[in-house]
Amino acid sequence: MDLNFRVEARCDSTHARCGRYQTAHGEVETPVFMPVGTQATVKGLAPDELEDMGASIILGNTYHLAVRPGVEVLEALGGMHTMAHWKRSILTDSGGFQVMSLAKLRKISEDGVRFRNHVDGAYVDLTPERAIRIQDAIGSDIMMCLDHLPPTTAPRAEVEEAMERTTRWAKRCLAARTRPDGALFAIIQGGIDHGLRTRHVEALCGEPFDGFAVGGLSVGESIPQMYETLEHTAPQLPADKPRYLMGVGTPIDLLEGVARGVDMFDCVMPTRNARKGSLFVDRGRRKLNLKNARFARQRGPIDPDCDCYTCRRFGAGYLRHLLKTNEFLAARLLSRHNVHLYLRLMADMRRALRAGRFAAFYRDWKSGLPG
Amino acid sequence: MDLNFRVEARCDSTHARCGRYQTAHGEVETPVFMPVGTQATVKGLAPDELEDMGASIILGNTYHLAVRPGVEVLEALGGMHTMAHWKRSILTDSGGFQVMSLAKLRKISEDGVRFRNHVDGAYVDLTPERAIRIQDAIGSDIMMCLDHLPPTTAPRAEVEEAMERTTRWAKRCLAARTRPDGALFAIIQGGIDHGLRTRHVEALCGEPFDGFAVGGLSVGESIPQMYETLEHTAPQLPADKPRYLMGVGTPIDLLEGVARGVDMFDCVMPTRNARKGSLFVDRGRRKLNLKNARFARQRGPIDPDCDCYTCRRFGAGYLRHLLKTNEFLAARLLSRHNVHLYLRLMADMRRALRAGRFAAFYRDWKSGLPG
Repeated sequence: MDLNFRVEARCDSTHARCGRYQTAHGEVETPVFMPVGTQATVKGLAPDELEDMGASIILGNTYHLAVRPGVEVLEALGGMHTMAHWKRSILTDSGGFQVMSLAKLRKISEDGVRFRNHVDGAYVDLTPERAIRIQDAIGSDIMMCLDHLPPTTAPRAEVEEAMERTTRWAKRCLAARTRPDGALFAIIQGGIDHGLRTRHVEALCGEPFDGFAVGGLSVGESIPQMYETLEHTAPQLPADKPRYLMGVGTPIDLLEGVARGVDMFDCVMPTRNARKGSLFVDRGRRKLNLKNARFARQRGPIDPDCDCYTCRRFGAGYLRHLLKTNEFLAARLLSRHNVHLYLRLMADMRRALRAGRFAAFYRDWKSGLPG
Repeated sequence: MDLNFRVEARCDSTHARCGRYQTAHGEVETPVFMPVGTQATVKGLAPDELEDMGASIILGNTYHLAVRPGVEVLEALGGMHTMAHWKRSILTDSGGFQVMSLAKLRKISEDGVRFRNHVDGAYVDLTPERAIRIQDAIGSDIMMCLDHLPPTTAPRAEVEEAMERTTRWAKRCLAARTRPDGALFAIIQGGIDHGLRTRHVEALCGEPFDGFAVGGLSVGESIPQMYETLEHTAPQLPADKPRYLMGVGTPIDLLEGVARGVDMFDCVMPTRNARKGSLFVDRGRRKLNLKNARFARQRGPIDPDCDCYTCRRFGAGYLRHLLKTNEFLAARLLSRHNVHLYLRLMADMRRALRAGRFAAFYRDWKSGLPG
């Protein structure tokens, strides 16, 4: 499905751009951050809260949803939109990330990946064709091709082999798609090797994908390496398709990513950090650890400048108490704060882009970074 | 503080009655169910959800809040209303229940109870005076006297001794109260011995308490024994003060309690059961175990007659998936269903009482019980 992506504003001193696209479940304004709902729920948050916060698209995960509840149940329940009461867009990761993160539980071949699943050890087979089939069952608006993601530390030959397999798998995914309302994105691999990245862009960008993702970053390389690779790769991607930087990152990564021409981001960081009491404050420029005793008696909010649901109602001392006593409400209220901050940062960047002042926004944001 | 309790309707064939009282934080219509917020949060639910569901009063726990966050922090944070963003009424259990439930961690003397707390083993001393002091720090609208609650299986002499100590402690609590906006309830003990119960009613009901609780039930006795003891005790309590049955119970217990003249109930059951997937349906007459495979593919709600937030949005299959994958959203959505059902049942009873048809309501409800 053509997403009818339109770039509506550009920064004249960076690669940053602002636009929108349309899925079967509504409009997505870019640049966008997509909260991660691995098991068909963004951990700690309800769908109406995500809507209230302005989330326009969330993630689901092909591998995890194939394990539980499984494809047949997904189909019986009408797919993720219906069962999770989520009316807006869904992008599904293909399971490629699990090829790396569950490396000890899988065998890879030209045909695909066989996992011993992490729950009960039963086999889960993920081929390009089956990855599409599962994403169909999920009812994904934007499907990802199955890719082979090696760790950044892998030898060049291995990175190259994985990249070439990813190309062959991407073409098989294209051939396997049947659903008219599902867009399909290819994933660019090649590690931090600029030559391989360029080769992979050339191999995939002529194919009729609806968007392109930069994969294989934030998996062990240094932050400068990540930015350099992105700076090299993103501008080579077709300008008229959305560009998605997978699994990234911190608030500053979002800013640097947008400046390098990225339109879409996802990361578990805002929710995972929140559950541990690690909270972003000051527009994302600082992080605090709520477990610290200095917050025990604080009546005021964790972030005085924040207008999220949590900060408008609850003080740091109470939130710390909930966290220390392992109360459910902690994960919920703290996730709400972090996700709000991420979504707000993206909205601020879009606004700056539309107003032609992204370069100033970028400078101003970074000038406030701690020491 | 006088709660200005008024009985506004009575059933002419049972002891059931309907009324209202006023705390510093608003009006409470009775009979009422009070969700339990042991650690200053009703597990899985946010305060605005409790408000939306119509909860007018929730519980906090003196012992647990004295352990965490502790009295000094409670005071620094402005008490439970402020910190937990709960604008309506709060009743606090005195820690008497923990005298029983944490029996292995405490020593009891005439002065009070010394616990080795369940978190880090530090001492927590609970005397009648200190129980009041902690409840002051919590900012409780209705405080409970510290009581000595023996298990139902205890020998008569032990039950009698605990009862007499409870009387002396209740009088010390009366003497220790200082806050003008906190009501104080006495707790009637005496196990399932009708003679002891009557003696305890006589010992306490002449004192200027603002309400009276029946304690020491639902702690090991049979259900008929509980109902008999209640039937014997509740009508002897002053008719012009609220009567509170502590820690009870199932939906049918609420119905039978109201029929025996009880005005207030609390129980962890709706939230605790929910977290395990044990859900009340059919107005509370049936329970289902959501882990059962028969729900895996069910698109429809867990209870087709329920109008709660959860049942209006989510099907049983998805809720089961959340439960099986240990997602936070499960505790939240399922607790919301069970608590809604409890609050709805109480509202239905109040309506029936006001309409003069409680006896019919009672018969009708019970006629639908499963074979």
